[in-house]
Amino acid sequence: MVESMPMSRVAQQERSKVTRRRLLEASLDTLSDVGLAGTTVSAVAARAGVSRGAAQHHFPTRDSLVEAALEEFFAERTQQLRSSVAKLSTGSGAAAVDAVDEVVTLIFGFFSNRPFHAALHIWAAASTDDSLRELIVPAEARYGREVYQLTALALNADLSDQHTRRLLGLTLDVARGLGLGSVLVDTRKHQNDAIKTWSRILDGIKRND
Amino acid sequence: MVESMPMSRVAQQERSKVTRRRLLEASLDTLSDVGLAGTTVSAVAARAGVSRGAAQHHFPTRDSLVEAALEEFFAERTQQLRSSVAKLSTGSGAAAVDAVDEVVTLIFGFFSNRPFHAALHIWAAASTDDSLRELIVPAEARYGREVYQLTALALNADLSDQHTRRLLGLTLDVARGLGLGSVLVDTRKHQNDAIKTWSRILDGIKRND
Repeated sequence: MVESMPMSRVAQQERSKVTRRRLLEASLDTLSDVGLAGTTVSAVAARAGVSRGAAQHHFPTRDSLVEAALEEFFAERTQQLRSSVAKLSTGSGAAAVDAVDEVVTLIFGFFSNRPFHAALHIWAAASTDDSLRELIVPAEARYGREVYQLTALALNADLSDQHTRRLLGLTLDVARGLGLGSVLVDTRKHQNDAIKTWSRILDGIKRND
Repeated sequence: MVESMPMSRVAQQERSKVTRRRLLEASLDTLSDVGLAGTTVSAVAARAGVSRGAAQHHFPTRDSLVEAALEEFFAERTQQLRSSVAKLSTGSGAAAVDAVDEVVTLIFGFFSNRPFHAALHIWAAASTDDSLRELIVPAEARYGREVYQLTALALNADLSDQHTRRLLGLTLDVARGLGLGSVLVDTRKHQNDAIKTWSRILDGIKRND
């Protein structure tokens, strides 16, 4: 074996990013499985296959780790929705019911996928754990505003109109309710009916010119 | 001390009912706190202050206990909604928006109270636990149908009309979504807006003559 070259600065930074990312993913898995009580820096490090020392270099405390994991989770979810919205065929100014249908399908689907189910575990844990709740609430509020804005953008909604704002808010409530319903059983048929009905209702919003 | 009289048959039955009830309540608390893995007949008996033998007399296995606890939970929730619906001022045939408002307030509130939050823990646990899921799904389906029927009754809805049926289904989806939103933060203002907006939409259902 030849002696290995000292790792370059770039390679070190790259490895550090990979470690950080693995720790964040392992945090969410650990939170989902065992709640905040069992989510220690050591437990997460073990799950991520990272040494405890390396984990503590990135995240000195449990709270800093959980906070970063939630931020990452929300950032990824927002990014995913943003790119889906960008791919919509509607474009700005479209107002046909079938275009609304496409947006509603996207938003409802966004709340019925696996990450939403994972989030549910964390929500349930936070409902009886004040320190987890304090970490989640501000991050969730920012996330909620971004999802709302992206939904408005996808629908080209005129947010100066109160009824339009309220219908957009309800759209996300319906989406969360459908997501919750989909946790234990396959609700695709019901979801498809809901998309049709909700699209008709949402077609009544005001659009930007 | 005088020797105690042998307990009468009626008193025995009464005591047995109280014991059963305490076990069922303790089961739900235990499920919420530690999930199915930690919900053993012994753990529930200890929490209920009942001997392990007495607990096993009522519920020989953990599954029989959990199943009964969920049935009891759903039965109580249905009974609570039934009596609330019976107290509504709407009566049969009422169609004014403010009457719809009253029904919507009732239904949305029903999904944002403490038992709903407790149920959320159990749902989250069931999403990663097949045996708990198998216990919940049929009981939940029956419960869902009853809540739907009671909502239809409260609104005097004509269930032969497809759009009416779909709006009723969506009403429960909105209610669940609002309930989920209310787990971590106080959403009363948003909930009040949602009641107004949804009542306007729901005023478009068909009524029985």
